[in-house]
Amino acid sequence: MRYTQEDLEKMLAPRAVAGVCSEPLTGIASLELAKRGDISFLHNQRYATQVAKSRASLLLLPENFPASPPPDTAYLFFANPSLALGILCEIVEKTLEIPPPIGIHPTAVIARTAEVHDAASVGPFCVIEENVKIGPHTVVGAHCCIGPRCVLGKCVRLHSHVTLYRDCELADRVILHSGVVIGSDGYGYATEGGVHKKLAHIGRVVLEKDVEIGANSCIDRARFAETRIGAGTKIDNLVQVAHNVIVGENCLLVAQVGIAGSTQLGNYVVLAGQAGVSGHLRLGDGVQVAAQGGVAEDLDAGAVVRGTPAMPIGMANRYFVLRKHVPELFRRVEHVEKKIAAKDAGGVSGAF
Amino acid sequence: MRYTQEDLEKMLAPRAVAGVCSEPLTGIASLELAKRGDISFLHNQRYATQVAKSRASLLLLPENFPASPPPDTAYLFFANPSLALGILCEIVEKTLEIPPPIGIHPTAVIARTAEVHDAASVGPFCVIEENVKIGPHTVVGAHCCIGPRCVLGKCVRLHSHVTLYRDCELADRVILHSGVVIGSDGYGYATEGGVHKKLAHIGRVVLEKDVEIGANSCIDRARFAETRIGAGTKIDNLVQVAHNVIVGENCLLVAQVGIAGSTQLGNYVVLAGQAGVSGHLRLGDGVQVAAQGGVAEDLDAGAVVRGTPAMPIGMANRYFVLRKHVPELFRRVEHVEKKIAAKDAGGVSGAF
Amino acid sequence: MRYTQEDLEKMLAPRAVAGVCSEPLTGIASLELAKRGDISFLHNQRYATQVAKSRASLLLLPENFPASPPPDTAYLFFANPSLALGILCEIVEKTLEIPPPIGIHPTAVIARTAEVHDAASVGPFCVIEENVKIGPHTVVGAHCCIGPRCVLGKCVRLHSHVTLYRDCELADRVILHSGVVIGSDGYGYATEGGVHKKLAHIGRVVLEKDVEIGANSCIDRARFAETRIGAGTKIDNLVQVAHNVIVGENCLLVAQVGIAGSTQLGNYVVLAGQAGVSGHLRLGDGVQVAAQGGVAEDLDAGAVVRGTPAMPIGMANRYFVLRKHVPELFRRVEHVEKKIAAKDAGGVSGAF
Repeated sequence: MRYTQEDLEKMLAPRAVAGVCSEPLTGIASLELAKRGDISFLHNQRYATQVAKSRASLLLLPENFPASPPPDTAYLFFANPSLALGILCEIVEKTLEIPPPIGIHPTAVIARTAEVHDAASVGPFCVIEENVKIGPHTVVGAHCCIGPRCVLGKCVRLHSHVTLYRDCELADRVILHSGVVIGSDGYGYATEGGVHKKLAHIGRVVLEKDVEIGANSCIDRARFAETRIGAGTKIDNLVQVAHNVIVGENCLLVAQVGIAGSTQLGNYVVLAGQAGVSGHLRLGDGVQVAAQGGVAEDLDAGAVVRGTPAMPIGMANRYFVLRKHVPELFRRVEHVEKKIAAKDAGGVSGAF
Repeated sequence: MRYTQEDLEKMLAPRAVAGVCSEPLTGIASLELAKRGDISFLHNQRYATQVAKSRASLLLLPENFPASPPPDTAYLFFANPSLALGILCEIVEKTLEIPPPIGIHPTAVIARTAEVHDAASVGPFCVIEENVKIGPHTVVGAHCCIGPRCVLGKCVRLHSHVTLYRDCELADRVILHSGVVIGSDGYGYATEGGVHKKLAHIGRVVLEKDVEIGANSCIDRARFAETRIGAGTKIDNLVQVAHNVIVGENCLLVAQVGIAGSTQLGNYVVLAGQAGVSGHLRLGDGVQVAAQGGVAEDLDAGAVVRGTPAMPIGMANRYFVLRKHVPELFRRVEHVEKKIAAKDAGGVSGAF
Repeated sequence: MRYTQEDLEKMLAPRAVAGVCSEPLTGIASLELAKRGDISFLHNQRYATQVAKSRASLLLLPENFPASPPPDTAYLFFANPSLALGILCEIVEKTLEIPPPIGIHPTAVIARTAEVHDAASVGPFCVIEENVKIGPHTVVGAHCCIGPRCVLGKCVRLHSHVTLYRDCELADRVILHSGVVIGSDGYGYATEGGVHKKLAHIGRVVLEKDVEIGANSCIDRARFAETRIGAGTKIDNLVQVAHNVIVGENCLLVAQVGIAGSTQLGNYVVLAGQAGVSGHLRLGDGVQVAAQGGVAEDLDAGAVVRGTPAMPIGMANRYFVLRKHVPELFRRVEHVEKKIAAKDAGGVSGAF
């Protein structure tokens, strides 16, 4: 990137401007890490004292922020500097992404019965099996494998190395990052005579519109019926969603989360990083589980929990503070016991 | 799928039948989620009250289940309804899987010295290196990379995007799901002068017969000798097995489990989701570790543990209940201390 | 492998030799698992008693180890037997690795503007996009996808199925194992009107020299600026590093570790298996986090912590011991309370 202050004022339309910076603007960085030539921003008042110290050449600031710029530095003021930054990033991103060519790369292997829309893009070395349907403006990156009867809507984006087993349904604007595996066999066995016999999994996976799934995450297909991820839900990297799980709409599943089989999540559920949820549970709308939390029972809508097994967060927070004083508590109880024993011993003689 | 009641009676041979359903049966669903046209089933008495409420058109029920079907609904009674469901699923599955064509796809790159059995199937874009041996009825999915000297037995199934580093040995009927990596370098370094120097790993990985490994799981090769997974062991998605680990037979390693280097597991060990086991440990036959448990010491055969670090499950369960009352315990101790202090103060005057 | 005792003496130059073994040496194994024909070694005094019992044909021992070999067995004595073993493994490894051919495999798809050094190797089915630069002696394994403008230094090694999104920078001698994904979109959304709107991520990932990253690990690119892994840092399998994280030099991130966004690690930080670090934190040089630990606040240089949320390790160890006695503590407090209540009741009469 390479912009002038003037370019930025045109792109972002600030409420007010103070100062002038002569240098070309070639990067974006936090207040602390920015160097000359960088754009920076204040998105959280807690970093306000860093504004004066920042070496950035141009800063995006809240409109009432009381500061005047040092020499050769420009301050641009906004109702919402984070939003302005977002707009800038989107403009820059468009210059970085090379739009993939429409059409099917000559190296791709496409089954005769697959229907790829003329306005779709299929990258090198893709393998697309029988009766797959791919909608318009959908981009299938290099090295993707799409199993029989999968249906991809409009504007879907598969990055490279995605695998879809059979019968997956991806609604419009689903984004899958590299290494994602959708629809693999659920982990289900019947143990007979000491042998784990594999159970047939005849269900499928449905990803509703606007779902995004991070790199190397896995969603198993249902034993029968569906594993389903609701519209607008965003899943981070290395997440495991087991067979028959139903995730509601607009949930956030942060990296390395695991959800065991047949569990159902409501809408707007947030599972922070490395959290786990046992099988066959119900988590209501808006449930939040703190990082590394382990949920082993149903949770009502709005519950916010922490710990393993998870407790209501207030209780967990109190407990985590007190936990450090448990050794002291043992000593205090021992002290009390001794006192009482002494009294007991002395009590006989009435000397207490 | 599309079956009539008559088809199902023929396929499943129920002990008894009650009621008649006229609709074609086109899906399978839980009692709660089933709609008209679905088959459902009772596999756990805890859901017995849902039978009467289910909208399913045909139900698989235990043979003595006291119920008569509503109009246009059929009940089929079995000694073991789960088994009947399993048989049905297997029949359906056969109609869903397209058997891969025998032979080597013309796009695959096969080393001159590799031996692929005539009855094996090698998919598009596979790369098979020197001295690999692939047995009969083995299916290598698209995009698999098989390193030098790997040996695959009979009826092995590699789904797409599997990587085998050099010298892996896969016995008959091993199944590896997409994204699995077997035989990568163990995580071993010698730190000399502040530099982590990579240690050569000259060992290999052996997967015994009937092992199944879920999507994106990783098994590192041994420093020397072997990392070995015993016959019949089933590994879920995103599991990590480090170098020199020996897993016994018929173990179950649930999703996101991690086992550190050189640890040995007996037979029938169960590690629930996200559990971790430290390095150089021995876990005896039948050990069970609850979800998110962390094992930091050897465990005798039959031990059932929970928590991090793991405790015997009875102790852990008691502790997890009492944990919630720890704040109260602090208050109780404080109260006792005050009482005693008051007595001490009053004790001088003998007023206790 | 197949060596004679004489071969080994030449390769390893022991300080002293005792005994003669006539068999060819064809494997390496631990003292306990070694069988006739194997080489074994004593690297830890705690296994000293196993030396006499080992069935190995040739042992590498510390130079002052007081033992004489049984019949047909050779003892080779070294100042550092582990080092001798390392040298042996390196020699063996060279015989196991087939050096990949220099040049670009004819099946690879290379953009016109990509610059691949003549002394580099690009494997089958690689996809290398516009303006990529690949240095000398770098090996790109089969099925790698390298996004626009990525720069790979000298002697870099990508194993198969690696994905680099755009603008990644890999310094000399970086090693990426199969399934690694570098530079995917950070997990960042702005929630407006209940909709999670994807934030543009215009930053990149920089991997400094001598970084190694294990199978199926993921490193997201920065929102702006960089996600950076410092020189000499070694990352195990299935690790998650989020957007804008800065990892220092020579750190060790063990399998299944997760680091949330914008966190900064100093040098020589060790995160043991399955540990997690929350976002926007600073961990000083030499911090160590025990397995499954969860770090939720900044840590000073040299801190060694354990537990979730993490405590100083001494405190955690005491707590984990006492934890088992918490049920007993409840009983003790109840006993004390009863005693006091009894005294209270009796106190009125002066009978204490």
